[in-house]
Amino acid sequence: MISGLLQQVDSATGLDATLERSLDLIGVFFFAVSGGLLAVRKGFELVGVVALSLVTALGGGVIRDVVLGATPPTAFNDVLYLVVPLSAAGLVFVAHQPIDHQFVKPVQFFDAAGLGLFAATGAVKAAAFEVSAVGAVLIGVIAAVGGGIVRDVLANEPPHLFHPESRLYAIPAALGATVIVVAWRNGFYSGGVAIGAAVGVSVLRLAAIRFGWRAPAPRRA
Amino acid sequence: MISGLLQQVDSATGLDATLERSLDLIGVFFFAVSGGLLAVRKGFELVGVVALSLVTALGGGVIRDVVLGATPPTAFNDVLYLVVPLSAAGLVFVAHQPIDHQFVKPVQFFDAAGLGLFAATGAVKAAAFEVSAVGAVLIGVIAAVGGGIVRDVLANEPPHLFHPESRLYAIPAALGATVIVVAWRNGFYSGGVAIGAAVGVSVLRLAAIRFGWRAPAPRRA
Amino acid sequence: MISGLLQQVDSATGLDATLERSLDLIGVFFFAVSGGLLAVRKGFELVGVVALSLVTALGGGVIRDVVLGATPPTAFNDVLYLVVPLSAAGLVFVAHQPIDHQFVKPVQFFDAAGLGLFAATGAVKAAAFEVSAVGAVLIGVIAAVGGGIVRDVLANEPPHLFHPESRLYAIPAALGATVIVVAWRNGFYSGGVAIGAAVGVSVLRLAAIRFGWRAPAPRRA
Repeated sequence: MISGLLQQVDSATGLDATLERSLDLIGVFFFAVSGGLLAVRKGFELVGVVALSLVTALGGGVIRDVVLGATPPTAFNDVLYLVVPLSAAGLVFVAHQPIDHQFVKPVQFFDAAGLGLFAATGAVKAAAFEVSAVGAVLIGVIAAVGGGIVRDVLANEPPHLFHPESRLYAIPAALGATVIVVAWRNGFYSGGVAIGAAVGVSVLRLAAIRFGWRAPAPRRA
Repeated sequence: MISGLLQQVDSATGLDATLERSLDLIGVFFFAVSGGLLAVRKGFELVGVVALSLVTALGGGVIRDVVLGATPPTAFNDVLYLVVPLSAAGLVFVAHQPIDHQFVKPVQFFDAAGLGLFAATGAVKAAAFEVSAVGAVLIGVIAAVGGGIVRDVLANEPPHLFHPESRLYAIPAALGATVIVVAWRNGFYSGGVAIGAAVGVSVLRLAAIRFGWRAPAPRRA
Repeated sequence: MISGLLQQVDSATGLDATLERSLDLIGVFFFAVSGGLLAVRKGFELVGVVALSLVTALGGGVIRDVVLGATPPTAFNDVLYLVVPLSAAGLVFVAHQPIDHQFVKPVQFFDAAGLGLFAATGAVKAAAFEVSAVGAVLIGVIAAVGGGIVRDVLANEPPHLFHPESRLYAIPAALGATVIVVAWRNGFYSGGVAIGAAVGVSVLRLAAIRFGWRAPAPRRA
């Protein structure tokens, strides 16, 4: 029944399944790069680089699936979801210096793409389960930002996205997930809505980096 | 079947369902306040305040439900379990200074109430699943203290309740959960036992604060 | 169906069930000792010692079972999985000084034994679920090293096994889990393979300590 439900979710995204999986795996790859680079900066060895790559790329989706009860999570079913981040970890291990110095902008770009894709697919998947609308939005946000939070926890740092200097990250994901859940609940959800929401999240994230938009912080004493 | 089981658990607490949910949501509210206040003290921005409010309020219950296999967890089903801590986060965001300075005692009081309620409802819920008696007690304790531990991990601090200066916190929860599981296994469980255990936990916690009771620490070299 | 599946897994290890459980509980005991000792070094009180003992001993297996959907996890079903680490915590609490000073080598020995056993039983259990071969290996590794990682996170330290000075730990577990999954997928799995893999992991870990073998680290700038 669970697997039937998942198939329904897949078809429900209204996207070509191969296209959807390809986009998802691109997000996985660049999230893995971001995890591996943090491990290098922290001075971790090979196991640390691999571990941070895997948790950053897959952590959000695994938490999403475990919370929904859709176990074992996609990441453990579909071997590409492990091969792709392991390859990213290997690449970071041997070539972290050029990646870290010359590809900051591409990494930011694809991280923003991953953020949008994971928020959208997370919200769509959650909407098909027995959760409240707000719960489905929250699961979309967790799918998008959860991997980065686990990465920071394992690196023994406070989550980057909570820092007042960080540019908007979770808020675009929440807006995108909200659009999807509202559309779903009101019967006008389609593949186009998912793509539009994902792109909107990514563009908003990149604009926040470009223009320095930050979330408000509590007034200090 | 799971939802049938949960209904059985709800009726099994022997409490009026509306009363039980109201008490639970009061605990959620004040746990959320405690999470939000820590986020403010750590200098986090809006997303950090919301995130720490949510994980403190809901983390224990989500871990409880995921471990039991009762997914999706209550927090994602029942929209009030998200509306209440989000409201608490908003309140902390705008009014953290008066809350932190003038309402220390009320926050302590309701945190103690939440501790007792979550230990009691966690143990009752676990007792209805296929777990050992000691396992059910442990799940009650996790439900009560798990959110606070995740809060501290995300704030990049060692869990407060492990600190030798902290007053009794997990131990009252363990005692209360034990009372409930013993009653359940021996057939004299009732709503009154649940209320008694919850109140007992809260009173013991408040007495520990008042009189400075601490758990023993290992002898230092 | 789940419980039937688990029984199949148990019989599938090809080991006498009592022997298997005994070996597993020995691993649980020594992992719990390692968690308790870290809590003492961090200056935690009784609750911290108990908590770190429990998460170190049981964390890997609980994550394994939650990810696989085999809930409630074994640790909450079989009371010995709680009695044994609680006893270890009690022992560490009263006798941490002689254990820490005079029994370093025995603790290393049994920690290595636990590593091998958990990698082997984790991979066998995962192989019986709907996961990819690489996914099953990863679950074996998580079962073996996950408890130690959660221990370090709760102690507010970066995971020890990511540190460049640490001796091979996750890599032997990955090799052992790979042997088991390859054997399983190719139809020559047996109890002897499981024992051989577990012993191989332990010997490799102990050799890494003895001869100072480390995982490679990324080249520094």
